[in-house]
Amino acid sequence: MVKFELYAQSSLARAGVLKTDLGEVLTPVFMPVGTQGTIKAITWRDIKELGFKLVLANTYHLYLRPGIDVIKSFGGLNRFVGFDGPILTDSGGFQVFSLSRRRRGFESRVRVLEEGVEFRDHLAGDLHLFTPERVIELQRVFGSRIVMPLDVCVEYGASKEEVKEGVMKTIRWLDRSLRAKLEPTQALFGIIQGGVFKDLRRESALMSLERDLPGYAIGGLSVGESQEEMLESAFVVCELIPKEKPRYLMGVGMPEDVLKAIGLGVDMFDCVAPTRMARTGTLFTSFGRLNIRNAIFAKDERPVDSLCDCYTCQNFSRAYLRHLFNSEEITAYILATIHNLRFYKRLMDGAREAIISNSFEKFQAETLQKLQYKEGIFIS
Amino acid sequence: MVKFELYAQSSLARAGVLKTDLGEVLTPVFMPVGTQGTIKAITWRDIKELGFKLVLANTYHLYLRPGIDVIKSFGGLNRFVGFDGPILTDSGGFQVFSLSRRRRGFESRVRVLEEGVEFRDHLAGDLHLFTPERVIELQRVFGSRIVMPLDVCVEYGASKEEVKEGVMKTIRWLDRSLRAKLEPTQALFGIIQGGVFKDLRRESALMSLERDLPGYAIGGLSVGESQEEMLESAFVVCELIPKEKPRYLMGVGMPEDVLKAIGLGVDMFDCVAPTRMARTGTLFTSFGRLNIRNAIFAKDERPVDSLCDCYTCQNFSRAYLRHLFNSEEITAYILATIHNLRFYKRLMDGAREAIISNSFEKFQAETLQKLQYKEGIFIS
Repeated sequence: MVKFELYAQSSLARAGVLKTDLGEVLTPVFMPVGTQGTIKAITWRDIKELGFKLVLANTYHLYLRPGIDVIKSFGGLNRFVGFDGPILTDSGGFQVFSLSRRRRGFESRVRVLEEGVEFRDHLAGDLHLFTPERVIELQRVFGSRIVMPLDVCVEYGASKEEVKEGVMKTIRWLDRSLRAKLEPTQALFGIIQGGVFKDLRRESALMSLERDLPGYAIGGLSVGESQEEMLESAFVVCELIPKEKPRYLMGVGMPEDVLKAIGLGVDMFDCVAPTRMARTGTLFTSFGRLNIRNAIFAKDERPVDSLCDCYTCQNFSRAYLRHLFNSEEITAYILATIHNLRFYKRLMDGAREAIISNSFEKFQAETLQKLQYKEGIFIS
Repeated sequence: MVKFELYAQSSLARAGVLKTDLGEVLTPVFMPVGTQGTIKAITWRDIKELGFKLVLANTYHLYLRPGIDVIKSFGGLNRFVGFDGPILTDSGGFQVFSLSRRRRGFESRVRVLEEGVEFRDHLAGDLHLFTPERVIELQRVFGSRIVMPLDVCVEYGASKEEVKEGVMKTIRWLDRSLRAKLEPTQALFGIIQGGVFKDLRRESALMSLERDLPGYAIGGLSVGESQEEMLESAFVVCELIPKEKPRYLMGVGMPEDVLKAIGLGVDMFDCVAPTRMARTGTLFTSFGRLNIRNAIFAKDERPVDSLCDCYTCQNFSRAYLRHLFNSEEITAYILATIHNLRFYKRLMDGAREAIISNSFEKFQAETLQKLQYKEGIFIS
């Protein structure tokens, strides 16, 4: 059972709590991405210390490696990976469409059938079929507390007809998913598609809402559209979803995106940005973004962010971090990942506090202002 | 000031304490190697949690990157890297000989002059001159508590004449090093050379001992000689060094080597083995070594070592670690490094306890027996 309770609202922004049998999660919430069963370059101990209660893992990756047999023999993902909080897993659909395409001869490699999606994986090139029933069964074995149904992800730039077809197939697949078996501790969310076509988004939302699900995801965004298109698409959906249901904007995003989407009433986010960018040396701070490899930091004794309470900022200088990056030390990726994830967590905590004290718009405006700086210099 | 006090002895094995102004270090001690200012794939927080009080850093690497200016501006290595315990630095000589050789056209790249060693670095190929005075000055700026003098490292297989020449130059360089300025908190050790020639080892030792230094390193080993040759070379030196002086066997070694050398009276060790092998998936356990990538561990729910108290063994299965290695996750390297370092620390703790309870020979025999297993199978 996953239950959402709305706690406070400030303009359209919402503060709430997701209750699961593995613990409560305060919203708005950002989920770090643990693609292959770990958040990259960090241990679960640090994930907990940073304050994260809910994480995302990818069905596609875990299905390929270590494989469902191994996870089944451990009685589920929690015990296999050694994390005792709730896990949300996606359906694998997005990876089928994005990763399989990377292989040569893609055109013949992903076939969207009525039955499901046939694809060759990006590792060995083997042929697989993901059906709505199969991906629910995989996630049942995983023991994911929040489960996502198989959906059709259409590329950005697809015709309205193609998007419409995807929306209709996604609903038919949702109905098949709903008939598949899950455990009582698990909750199946719906995924609303429709690309950047507002009428299709509304149609997809209304059809999903008829199924009265415990939560709704907004999918198919952050795939190349402008920030404005992304936010407008999220907005038309948020307007329709009843207040008491959590809204999850999949794969979003940069701090600015997250902050703006919270302002539209989104409750849940996931994105590889903080961890992936950390590994390239791009660090988020209270005064904008900086690339720690920059030579201006060679002797900089200050922490990455003087307002940050993370292990990295409390103990190390920009100069040391720059040195570790230039020396390609794994420790660089560890320290940067800790910092960026803490930045996201504090952003969410700040947003929540502002919502509760009914001052979200002020918080949003001030934070967006600061995020426009890069290496301390305003970027227009 | 670095002071050594002998606390107990069991056969030839010794338990003592190295006292520095940055804390006390119990011996026998294994120093993790922080080549470029960090132990690879681990944070200082974990290094402390694992119980390490003394670490090694490499002068050659830090001199090249971030460079002496940066470290000077931080007032030394401790503040730059964010570690508050004593640091031992080598002289850079070993890296000059080993790393510079990797470059094409090596023959003309390292010139051993009376003045010092002229070399081209392995990064940019720039020309540098390390003199005895210069490397002492570098380490003075680093603030290393234990300082190593420049020495001549002769390749394994060199003629007796070459080795003899290296021994004599090493002594002349030691005398120049002794005239260079250090801070009162720092101690300069002597390095005894002589390859695998026992008479040269004795000659080098006796000349070094005349200088009455606070500690003696046994250098030029672990470069290709057999374990027997290595141990015999260490033994002839240990016999000559007065009881009250610490003995440091540089670059050694594997657990078996360390254990046998402790039995000859060696007090200090450093080696990249635990950290480097961790990153390849080779893990040390109380029941021998295992390669965690092995398919036999695919569903193995047991910890790497059921007798180990490290974070990795307390929280994760062999199957999960294998999965992380196969997925090339940085987290794999973190968890494996934590475990292997903890293994070495417990080995040293066990040796010390055995020495204090005067049962070192029993401990050594039993431990060597267990170390002969691989993946739980005895290897002859």
